[in-house]
Amino acid sequence: MAIAATEPTSVRSFGPGTALSCRECGQRYELTPKFACEFCFGPLEVAYDFGTVTREEIESGPNNIWRYRSLLPVPTNVAELPNMNPGLTPLVRADRLAAELGFDSLHVKDDSGNPTHSFKDRVVAIAVEAARTFGFTTLSCSSTGNLAGAVGAAAARAGFESCVFIPAGLEEAKVVMAAVYGGKVVAIDGNYDDVNRFCSELIGDPVGEGWGFVNVNLRPYYGEGSKTLAYEIAEQLGWRLPEQIVIPIASGSQLTKIDKGFQELIKLGLVEDRPYKIFGAQATGCSPVAKAWEEGHDVIQPVKPDTIAKSLAIGNPADGPYVLDIAKRTGGSVEHVGDDEVVDAIRLLARTEGVFAETAGGVTTGVLRKLVREGRIDTKAETVVLNTGDGLKTLNAVDAGVTATVKPTLAAFTAAGLA
Amino acid sequence: MAIAATEPTSVRSFGPGTALSCRECGQRYELTPKFACEFCFGPLEVAYDFGTVTREEIESGPNNIWRYRSLLPVPTNVAELPNMNPGLTPLVRADRLAAELGFDSLHVKDDSGNPTHSFKDRVVAIAVEAARTFGFTTLSCSSTGNLAGAVGAAAARAGFESCVFIPAGLEEAKVVMAAVYGGKVVAIDGNYDDVNRFCSELIGDPVGEGWGFVNVNLRPYYGEGSKTLAYEIAEQLGWRLPEQIVIPIASGSQLTKIDKGFQELIKLGLVEDRPYKIFGAQATGCSPVAKAWEEGHDVIQPVKPDTIAKSLAIGNPADGPYVLDIAKRTGGSVEHVGDDEVVDAIRLLARTEGVFAETAGGVTTGVLRKLVREGRIDTKAETVVLNTGDGLKTLNAVDAGVTATVKPTLAAFTAAGLA
Repeated sequence: MAIAATEPTSVRSFGPGTALSCRECGQRYELTPKFACEFCFGPLEVAYDFGTVTREEIESGPNNIWRYRSLLPVPTNVAELPNMNPGLTPLVRADRLAAELGFDSLHVKDDSGNPTHSFKDRVVAIAVEAARTFGFTTLSCSSTGNLAGAVGAAAARAGFESCVFIPAGLEEAKVVMAAVYGGKVVAIDGNYDDVNRFCSELIGDPVGEGWGFVNVNLRPYYGEGSKTLAYEIAEQLGWRLPEQIVIPIASGSQLTKIDKGFQELIKLGLVEDRPYKIFGAQATGCSPVAKAWEEGHDVIQPVKPDTIAKSLAIGNPADGPYVLDIAKRTGGSVEHVGDDEVVDAIRLLARTEGVFAETAGGVTTGVLRKLVREGRIDTKAETVVLNTGDGLKTLNAVDAGVTATVKPTLAAFTAAGLA
Repeated sequence: MAIAATEPTSVRSFGPGTALSCRECGQRYELTPKFACEFCFGPLEVAYDFGTVTREEIESGPNNIWRYRSLLPVPTNVAELPNMNPGLTPLVRADRLAAELGFDSLHVKDDSGNPTHSFKDRVVAIAVEAARTFGFTTLSCSSTGNLAGAVGAAAARAGFESCVFIPAGLEEAKVVMAAVYGGKVVAIDGNYDDVNRFCSELIGDPVGEGWGFVNVNLRPYYGEGSKTLAYEIAEQLGWRLPEQIVIPIASGSQLTKIDKGFQELIKLGLVEDRPYKIFGAQATGCSPVAKAWEEGHDVIQPVKPDTIAKSLAIGNPADGPYVLDIAKRTGGSVEHVGDDEVVDAIRLLARTEGVFAETAGGVTTGVLRKLVREGRIDTKAETVVLNTGDGLKTLNAVDAGVTATVKPTLAAFTAAGLA
């Protein structure tokens, strides 16, 4: 209790967060490491009492996601705690890509600028604070790769042990980045969905005691980190919602939270209430949500992923049904593109905007182009496309190398036809 | 002339820049793509008339280096032009590393947060503006790897052709990142110094007409980008100079420009004039400046580089003598560490702060530790260490991988001794 006495009494551990609430039945729970409703097994999410939040308050905050701390379930003094402090990544005005695709106004939200170069730093940053509050000593996760790196780094920064779980056969860069921070990295002989099932088993076991699995028992907190993408895009557009946005789908959580973030901004009067359309993007080799959308189903049929977009390779996406709802409600859609188009779109984005995207960014850019080609997106409307990861982590996806190797003489250079 | 009529008359192409001035003899020239003094062959740098610059003006600027545009040779409307807009990377409060090394106050300036994940985006951003002003159509450079990626990306964003030159045998990630943006990447059969000589030859040849070599004929502009590291560190410390700073040395330009930036801040009254010590860091396998320092020489003896820190592998560093001057003037020093210590320091920084540095960051962190070990740095003084690149680009330097691969069952996990 000695520690409690030295803590400022004004610090609220979850800021404006007041409870956990079941997304299905509305049952409320205290803010604990609980992730499923006891009554209906629905997913829990954080409920808030925001009070008044102003643009000025946000703009005077730090240059990272903590400028939005009054909209997040984190300690009120979060900016002073050891954390990776992600966010405020560039919203790139993509005039050259816009010209090539025929858009009047197009932006790329480039989340490769985060500390471990994917959007996962956002969600982990929130989970770390919850883990600290709950007294967990080990940070863990099931991961398709990016999350493992984000957890490893955040654990190192904040002084937690870490043990992360990935499917065997991931890209080398993702494995090294997960391991370099000194925590344990366990490859599971199976795909991501096997890893996820294994982690759920581990949580119920004494072995997992004291472990905060950022995307399982800390999921209600973790998920809220994706809202910051919505806040930043709106603020960076000059406190305005985009009219159209293309978002990748892995579990579907990010897409649902961006929608939640937009809705909060509207309710708080921070942006004008104007319609926006949300488009979900999957790789054809793992497109259960796009398939349900095409066929008009409400239920997602799990698939066995087979795509180079490994960071999106979740065959049984937990938030798939909510994604379908949001695409329908906003007038968007859920689309997919094949691996060849993913690679081509990575090159397109690199060539026009100097943004080297991970395969997931190839999926969103590829879907954007497909939507234009098929006349199913409005090229006159203000549009944002997300790049959630970094091309350096999926190097093998693009076949890029030196144009030529020559001796250091003008004669050799000219002879090679390079002049 | 039709274009000129539509340009705002208030735009000055080089902002506060007034002339090029020879660092050796002081001879002044107009702001053109000139890089060596006609009289003494000394390097040219930009001279300024800053007028009054306030903290408030800077703080109200964009969240990138253009907040310092009134201290840089760039168009006054630079923030509206297509550019990678690097900078304002995190200054990480490194409490866990500080505790391990015994410092009272230690920060890591982590420049892996830039768009192509190295500090090179800063210098290229300035060079791109000069290239645009001078009407160049192709961007080029001699590069140890990071610069090639930065030039490729910036050329794509700003709509230039590009052709970059690298030594053969660079890390795969650096080659792919240079090539993915669609420009030409030419590997030269030789080391960086050979590449550099070749580029100087190319500039004098008709083949190189219309080409802006960012670090050769645009070097006076390019170099100024490194000043932004000084500005950011001071602003992020609360408008205060650090008392000690550890900076890597490749050509030595970055170190000299950080010193220049600190001096400008003092002269403009933006920070208090307090003493600071600058420590230069090299890898033992390419340590001509450290060797001259040790031996008390003013002249740098070129070496043939042999180190894993390829981004610092410049055997004939142009600004070496200036580095010696600055280390002497400020009471710092120039040190080197071997490749084993570089790798160990990369791991130390990752394990304590969640920062995955390139080999160059291992060099600075390794030198920092060496200085502590040998009692030649003040652990009570406010200290900053630079990480100028990203571990994802030098993956092979660290031997990191999965702890174990197991079947997705609790039994397998426990049997592997992981529980």
